[in-house]
Amino acid sequence: MSIIQKACKVIPASKIAKSYINEITDTTSKLVKKPKLVGLLANDDPAALMYATWTGKTANNLGFQYELIQVSKDQLEEEIYKCNNNDEINGMIVYFPVFGNKQDQYLQQCVSIHKDVEGLNFKYISNMYHNIRYLDDNSKLMKSILPCTPLAIVKILEFIGAYNKVLDIGDRLYGKTITIVNRSEIVGRPLAALLANDGATVYSVDINDIQLYERGDGLRYKQHKVEDCNKSLEDCAKISDIIITGVPNKTYKFPTNYIKRGAIVINFSSEKNFNDEDVEKIASLYVPSIGKVTIAMLLRNLLRLMDNKKAANAKSIETPIQPTNQPQEI
Amino acid sequence: MSIIQKACKVIPASKIAKSYINEITDTTSKLVKKPKLVGLLANDDPAALMYATWTGKTANNLGFQYELIQVSKDQLEEEIYKCNNNDEINGMIVYFPVFGNKQDQYLQQCVSIHKDVEGLNFKYISNMYHNIRYLDDNSKLMKSILPCTPLAIVKILEFIGAYNKVLDIGDRLYGKTITIVNRSEIVGRPLAALLANDGATVYSVDINDIQLYERGDGLRYKQHKVEDCNKSLEDCAKISDIIITGVPNKTYKFPTNYIKRGAIVINFSSEKNFNDEDVEKIASLYVPSIGKVTIAMLLRNLLRLMDNKKAANAKSIETPIQPTNQPQEI
Repeated sequence: MSIIQKACKVIPASKIAKSYINEITDTTSKLVKKPKLVGLLANDDPAALMYATWTGKTANNLGFQYELIQVSKDQLEEEIYKCNNNDEINGMIVYFPVFGNKQDQYLQQCVSIHKDVEGLNFKYISNMYHNIRYLDDNSKLMKSILPCTPLAIVKILEFIGAYNKVLDIGDRLYGKTITIVNRSEIVGRPLAALLANDGATVYSVDINDIQLYERGDGLRYKQHKVEDCNKSLEDCAKISDIIITGVPNKTYKFPTNYIKRGAIVINFSSEKNFNDEDVEKIASLYVPSIGKVTIAMLLRNLLRLMDNKKAANAKSIETPIQPTNQPQEI
Repeated sequence: MSIIQKACKVIPASKIAKSYINEITDTTSKLVKKPKLVGLLANDDPAALMYATWTGKTANNLGFQYELIQVSKDQLEEEIYKCNNNDEINGMIVYFPVFGNKQDQYLQQCVSIHKDVEGLNFKYISNMYHNIRYLDDNSKLMKSILPCTPLAIVKILEFIGAYNKVLDIGDRLYGKTITIVNRSEIVGRPLAALLANDGATVYSVDINDIQLYERGDGLRYKQHKVEDCNKSLEDCAKISDIIITGVPNKTYKFPTNYIKRGAIVINFSSEKNFNDEDVEKIASLYVPSIGKVTIAMLLRNLLRLMDNKKAANAKSIETPIQPTNQPQEI
């Protein structure tokens, strides 16, 4: 028997990003003024600076202004509020970690919901878990922003055919089993919820345990439920059609022998979580990194924020309370 | 020379709580219907159950209804939303830790701002850091809730005379130097900000470093600034008029020889951070625990939430978006 060429297609993020990039430049090219994105950097990690610079280059190429603001940790909150109140700025990214503790979650929430291109505002995240897609549930003019990395992975799964378009919107992952190795609040947990809300059976794996996210037989629940799961990673992975990893560890490698023949494999960690050569022998589709799709989603979110602003101005919603300093008895 | 009785006064929390308790029962006794507080317990820590039960007893004694709801971790979010939407419930406490990771911060924010007796909603915390005391900055009818443990400590400091009433409101800690050993997002950091906003020079100590919170010479800033500080704990403590600790560790003891003669000493940890006998030899005022004041503040916050609701109904502010489930393309 002669051996044919290996069937696995390795899909670079750039290829997936392309259609979104075209959509974005189409929009920006028609604008009178370039939308402005600000990056706020308050740590001295050279990798963060590199990433911030790279974000800037991509933004510039796609028709945006980008300004990188470097501040001390203790000035960051004030700077965020300045940007919130600056009408010239359409969107903002804060490069974390800053303090590396819960204060970072506080700072993240300081970013105005109207400028949060990363989709990490509590309101956005909570809407996502509850499958609420609009900020104004009645008029449906203002879209709720989705967190950009989970959104990028959804878009990748759509691009590579994991969503079955014969099924109804919202059910298009029904029948798919997915293992996600990462349950961070920024990516892994929202991703598990998004995919389960779309009908998938999702095993969410972290260092302590495995959880099952699903809508039940016949998708009888309208949104996902979460249960503890007694299966091992091996058991989960071996029945998974899709394996997604995001382990921020140079030495971690997902065991190739856990991958089901013909599975789809996606790595969203900045580290290589797979041995490429081995994966290509067993997977059907392999997306080794996702950064370029994530940044496309980030810029797409920025344009959505601008649409929301237009819709809000049309409706003239209430203005947020501004910081003032009247001393008062507590 | 004859030795007189030691000068240090040990002030039990119950004594401080009393005036607030009177104020609270005064209010509840005039209400047609008892306000309802719900405690949500989703961990199986017997200490948490004990605390929850104790909260309930106190609430009952002060004229409130209290219901303890025990749920599984995975049901907690749904239960919080149920309580948010239940008009019979006036306030809610969630007993953390639940997952013991960042998901707990997410869950905390799920509690409606209108029922958050602990004052931990991002909006409240952010208002507190920015010295904003009202939710409606123009009409000033709806008070911004303060986080109950830091608030309890402020009230204790007022009670024991650390606030100088000759000075203007908002400046009454001017001249006071305070060391706080704890920089949690729930207590230590907001407390440092509150006290510095009131004019104090605050050293905020955690396991990694020491930060200085202050409004500058002559209180030239309207709100506190934060700077890194190179002093040691010993240096900070020895110049501090007030030492406040909250180290959640059975074996930790604050070194008594760091306490300035005549200092005020407060422990808000549930563990004994001081050797009582030694502290009494050197401190002027010593508050060994604060729990009863904290719970008084919690119930006081509940009454404030009810006042805010009345004010809001009068103004008929916008209603929050309810979770729905319309599948939509992302």
